[in-house]
Amino acid sequence: MKISLENVDDLALGTAFLSTGGGGDPYIYKLALNNAIAESGSVPLVSPADLDDTATVISLGGVGAPMIGSEKLPNGVEGVHAVRLLEDYADVKADALIAAEIGGGNGLVPLLTALHMEIPVVDADGMGRAYPETQMMTFSIYGISATPMSAVDEFGNGVVLTAHDSITAERIVRQVGLAMGGHCMSADHIMSGADVRQFAIHHTVSLAIRLGKVVRQSNSVDDLLQSASPLLVEAGYGAAVNLFEGKVVDVSREMVGGYDIGEIVVASFNDQHEMTIKVQNEYLIAHIDGKCCATVPDLICVVDRDTLLPITSERVRYGLRIAVIGIGAPRLYKSPEAMAATSPRAFGFDMEYTDMSPEF
Amino acid sequence: MKISLENVDDLALGTAFLSTGGGGDPYIYKLALNNAIAESGSVPLVSPADLDDTATVISLGGVGAPMIGSEKLPNGVEGVHAVRLLEDYADVKADALIAAEIGGGNGLVPLLTALHMEIPVVDADGMGRAYPETQMMTFSIYGISATPMSAVDEFGNGVVLTAHDSITAERIVRQVGLAMGGHCMSADHIMSGADVRQFAIHHTVSLAIRLGKVVRQSNSVDDLLQSASPLLVEAGYGAAVNLFEGKVVDVSREMVGGYDIGEIVVASFNDQHEMTIKVQNEYLIAHIDGKCCATVPDLICVVDRDTLLPITSERVRYGLRIAVIGIGAPRLYKSPEAMAATSPRAFGFDMEYTDMSPEF
Repeated sequence: MKISLENVDDLALGTAFLSTGGGGDPYIYKLALNNAIAESGSVPLVSPADLDDTATVISLGGVGAPMIGSEKLPNGVEGVHAVRLLEDYADVKADALIAAEIGGGNGLVPLLTALHMEIPVVDADGMGRAYPETQMMTFSIYGISATPMSAVDEFGNGVVLTAHDSITAERIVRQVGLAMGGHCMSADHIMSGADVRQFAIHHTVSLAIRLGKVVRQSNSVDDLLQSASPLLVEAGYGAAVNLFEGKVVDVSREMVGGYDIGEIVVASFNDQHEMTIKVQNEYLIAHIDGKCCATVPDLICVVDRDTLLPITSERVRYGLRIAVIGIGAPRLYKSPEAMAATSPRAFGFDMEYTDMSPEF
Repeated sequence: MKISLENVDDLALGTAFLSTGGGGDPYIYKLALNNAIAESGSVPLVSPADLDDTATVISLGGVGAPMIGSEKLPNGVEGVHAVRLLEDYADVKADALIAAEIGGGNGLVPLLTALHMEIPVVDADGMGRAYPETQMMTFSIYGISATPMSAVDEFGNGVVLTAHDSITAERIVRQVGLAMGGHCMSADHIMSGADVRQFAIHHTVSLAIRLGKVVRQSNSVDDLLQSASPLLVEAGYGAAVNLFEGKVVDVSREMVGGYDIGEIVVASFNDQHEMTIKVQNEYLIAHIDGKCCATVPDLICVVDRDTLLPITSERVRYGLRIAVIGIGAPRLYKSPEAMAATSPRAFGFDMEYTDMSPEF
């Protein structure tokens, strides 16, 4: 498969849907990718099954608060710089790139970069959504070293780091991102094709394109859920369920330590019920009337209730009428080691993972 | 000349005297250097004049708040790790090391490292004192690129960074230091022997040893000033003058952005006059009764009035009886470009450089 002009809008919609609020608004990368494809042709997408066992694959994505990413525009070739820096340091050549996270703009970055580098992108990613931290990637969870890792800014400043574990790498790269104005582009997790087959969330690029088409063609939230669920289940996720509908009545948001941290409060249209959503770049935990109804690693997605357009966390504002959709996490996030890295406790919340329960 | 066991105590005293408060208390590195010399022999000290024009020289020093350095103990081979990382990245081999700053523990770090690496240390440094930031080194001021630069911690985590200018490098490495617990060891400014001859502050290692001996052998502040001044003038500094004597009556100190930031208030023994000293790791600006009496780039040094032992900024506390000594900056800090990098404005103070005036 190749990603051509006709796929980009759907891909951007689908990555925003899967973003669970994070990964950055795909808008700017949609424009850049459209331009680049118009100029240089389509981007080859390679299925994990078709990768050589010994192929070298490098993971790529932005690090920082999405709110910063929406104001600090990229030059569009940060990814190339990040990958080249890592290649030079580690003395490897990338045969293909893979998204660190399919969610949001970070789902499009590898395509734009691969086009410039004339290599394919793997139809897979390291999260199946977006998460705020390096050690939450399946690659890290299942033992691929996150480092050496590069981080660059739009001015060409660059860093290569090595660290004993992914959490240390995350702490360092987060601070580097802060020094680079709150956001940097990072290449990491040098893997083999065999690693990708084993540890990546498969087919998420093509899933995002299909989900984008569903978003575009659906007429209601129910319609969207009915069409999206079989695609998600086929891709190894749980089905999509409607957790809550209502109006955003409060948004608190701070940039703390390189993240957007906050809480969203949504009132049901009959004013009888209230949902709160805890945010660290991504929508992490949802409560209805004080009772937990969904947590990481399950996906909590927000769409505009009328247009069905996905809403990333930095775009949520008072008065939006939204539907909150829950999606069961992919299998690779159900293991004990994945739960240790991505359950509510991994984000500092004193609570366990809770099965999704839309009833109230 | 070689640095042997008989020099280490004087060297540590002298680097503390020249530290202007920063560079970290030399105590821990004095112990480490004594141990290493007892085990491996003395450290060759090479005069700038004797360096080959094409010799490769690398600058080395710790980055972070001195207060952190006093509690977060080094493993003693961070310098080796930092230099090796930089050598590998830049594909060079260091023929000699040079202190980023002679002041404080950072004046001893290159000796300890060079001993492990079996290479000499240059009898010179990049500040002639201590300063808090990379771009304040003479090497950076006179056009040597600060990057590639490495930064490592005591656990073996490491970073190599490239940046367009020293200020950007400083911003990034400071954040890396924060991610590494508030302090890291950095190797930078890959230079030639010819560069060192032109841009380093010469003979500061041997000066520190001589000053340490003077501190040890003097019986009063006047005695110390009379013996130290000719040595300082011979080395290209101004003479040492007594700016103030009194008792520390207030110390404010915060760790902000990877620095110790604060103010020290000293009351004269007759309670008629008061000196305030602004601190950013180093003693930057001194006022007597509200009138400025000394500023960077001139050196403001603090010694215990009775023992004459130098006091680094993180050790200043209420009740200490101190003498505050001013020393004219070396010639390389008198140029317009050096003034731009190290005058009070470079530290965010809305005032010009002021000639030293001990009278009040």
